[in-house]
Amino acid sequence: VRAWLMAAAGFGRKAWLIGADDPRKVVHGVKVGAALSLVSLFYYTRPLYDGVGGWAMWAVMTVVVVFEFTVGGCLCKGFNRAMATVTAGLLAVGVHWIASRAGETAEPVILSASVFVLASAATFSRFLPAIKARFDYGITIFILTFTFVAVSGYRVDRLLHLAQQRAYTIVIGVGICLLVCVFICPVWAGQELHLLVSGNMEKLADSLEGLAEECFMEDQGRQLPSAKSPGYKCVLNSKASEDSQANLAKWEPPHGRFRFRHPWSQYLKVTAAMRYCAYCMEALNGCVASEIKASEKMKSHLRGVCVKLSSDSSKVLKELARSIRSMEESRSIPCLVTEMKRGAQELQAALRSLPEQLMSAGGEEETTADGGGGENQRVTVSLMEGMPIITAACLLAEVSERVEG
Amino acid sequence: VRAWLMAAAGFGRKAWLIGADDPRKVVHGVKVGAALSLVSLFYYTRPLYDGVGGWAMWAVMTVVVVFEFTVGGCLCKGFNRAMATVTAGLLAVGVHWIASRAGETAEPVILSASVFVLASAATFSRFLPAIKARFDYGITIFILTFTFVAVSGYRVDRLLHLAQQRAYTIVIGVGICLLVCVFICPVWAGQELHLLVSGNMEKLADSLEGLAEECFMEDQGRQLPSAKSPGYKCVLNSKASEDSQANLAKWEPPHGRFRFRHPWSQYLKVTAAMRYCAYCMEALNGCVASEIKASEKMKSHLRGVCVKLSSDSSKVLKELARSIRSMEESRSIPCLVTEMKRGAQELQAALRSLPEQLMSAGGEEETTADGGGGENQRVTVSLMEGMPIITAACLLAEVSERVEG
Repeated sequence: VRAWLMAAAGFGRKAWLIGADDPRKVVHGVKVGAALSLVSLFYYTRPLYDGVGGWAMWAVMTVVVVFEFTVGGCLCKGFNRAMATVTAGLLAVGVHWIASRAGETAEPVILSASVFVLASAATFSRFLPAIKARFDYGITIFILTFTFVAVSGYRVDRLLHLAQQRAYTIVIGVGICLLVCVFICPVWAGQELHLLVSGNMEKLADSLEGLAEECFMEDQGRQLPSAKSPGYKCVLNSKASEDSQANLAKWEPPHGRFRFRHPWSQYLKVTAAMRYCAYCMEALNGCVASEIKASEKMKSHLRGVCVKLSSDSSKVLKELARSIRSMEESRSIPCLVTEMKRGAQELQAALRSLPEQLMSAGGEEETTADGGGGENQRVTVSLMEGMPIITAACLLAEVSERVEG
Repeated sequence: VRAWLMAAAGFGRKAWLIGADDPRKVVHGVKVGAALSLVSLFYYTRPLYDGVGGWAMWAVMTVVVVFEFTVGGCLCKGFNRAMATVTAGLLAVGVHWIASRAGETAEPVILSASVFVLASAATFSRFLPAIKARFDYGITIFILTFTFVAVSGYRVDRLLHLAQQRAYTIVIGVGICLLVCVFICPVWAGQELHLLVSGNMEKLADSLEGLAEECFMEDQGRQLPSAKSPGYKCVLNSKASEDSQANLAKWEPPHGRFRFRHPWSQYLKVTAAMRYCAYCMEALNGCVASEIKASEKMKSHLRGVCVKLSSDSSKVLKELARSIRSMEESRSIPCLVTEMKRGAQELQAALRSLPEQLMSAGGEEETTADGGGGENQRVTVSLMEGMPIITAACLLAEVSERVEG
């Protein structure tokens, strides 16, 4: 019993943390409850019930299935559901009319065959990426509605009435969903994406600084785990959520600072560049964690220039993040980028002079050579990492201009 | 009109390519069609229709919503649907019983409040990662069923009959789904994951070899795009699909060579190691594409040892892929790993001797230094890349033992 209580307490604590971390998630739960209670009014008030009849349960189903966390998701599903229901309903009525002309015995055969063919084709079309991204939910509803109308029409024989009722209830359901979703604490997919991108960029900047410090730290402090570095890890696997948010953001009407035709697809280019930076940082992190220790001599030769390069790069990233967040063109970015490029050239120069330094160390060389591979490795990865950041910076500067323009 | 025809032709060609690439996708479409036709039999045959009545549409809905591409997905959704319906139904009957004791005016208030509270709590619980991964669909159904039963019970007043009918139709729907899904050309999520992992490992091996060749190619051939290298790119963003397949594979019964309690979570560790290799290769690829050219002198010094290391590593990966695919322990892996480790040590030695070589080049140094950074960079990244591969190899060797054990 105690184990159960412990598990329940742990679960509750986890739930509390998630709620405290993002109160909008709690609000979302309350919104769904409110929308369902609104719909259930149709059952309790006599005049409304008489108007829509037993079909009110379709409105309940619409609310449960269509209500999404973001406005874009809600609009996308609502549109899908409405379009798919109308298309499938009309198609089914057409097939039914043809089948009813074909005679008593041919009718079920024609209906079954049409269900079989259309369901097969629609299911297969979900494997096409372009359709999967936009109409996945719509196709489920298309198959469902077509089968309902085609099959139940054979018995009920009042097809148009059925279609009409279904349309009413879906309009009611989608309407309630949208009202609650848009007017009570709306969560915009576009804004989420916007904040995610600028937040991730700041995390990248922090971990870049942290990694460079860790790399050139004094040996006694090497065991200290860095609190800054793991920030970039959340950039590594964020592709799926960014893609879906950009997809949903396209459905949203203009809101806040985001005007009509905001360049959402540009955000995906920025995140691709950021992900590339994160790959490089993961590789660099592997070097930091590796067993091979570098000599103090080499470290001190390269420490200054490397730490400067990484702090320059991270300044550029932070300035870009600020510029994206405020959606204003930053005057200081070009000169920060120039400085970063100069830093990268200094590092290249330092690397070139490294062999000479090593030789001048003379007798010491025997002992330091041991770590040469490891250190070279670290430093050149820093350099290598500078490169994509420059690329990313150019791309980002371009993008931020477009965002503002 | 011609533009429309062109678009339609392009769409058809794309669909044909997808179907030809994986005929099981076409088979899946046909299976859904067959399952729906089977269910629609309930409408056309008088005795079955009288047994289940107008509720047969719930069976249609169950088939449309539960039928998934893989057996694991189908089982997971079917289980979720059944459990959620039973739980929510019982709970709703309980709440309804309490509400009916509370008097005429309090009844709708209690019912609405219970819908509000339960829907809010259930919606919020979807944000918990542990629940999201396993019961996301179940919670939708839970809210749906609870609202239906709680609300419609107020009018229909034959709750138990409603619950019973619903249970019948869901059993029929899930039963038909599972029969068709398991017995007609089944697609097992576990097998998909198994093939994906071994296939991706081979792609990694191929691109590793390709990248090393490209890196040390003669300058005149540098412009040739390598056909081998992009294979690793599909490893970069595969986390989401691997996670979901491993999740679904756990639902599947033993099949083929996969026994009960097959260590599916081990596959995720292997893919994490592979993804790490792919990150390093992406970084290496960036170096190959970068502007900085290396001197021929340095290249020739390191070419042999680097190409050997990469071909050794890729042999290890290929052997591991074969061993995973056949699920047999490979005798040759330990000795291949030893050889790869020796290769890595040789590379380290070559790097250490590099400064001396550079100095002995004397007057030439001025001209070659230009590319020193770039080449060092390339080579050391190769080394760096060797490290995670060794790590991965150890991990993989361990895993393949567990898979067989």
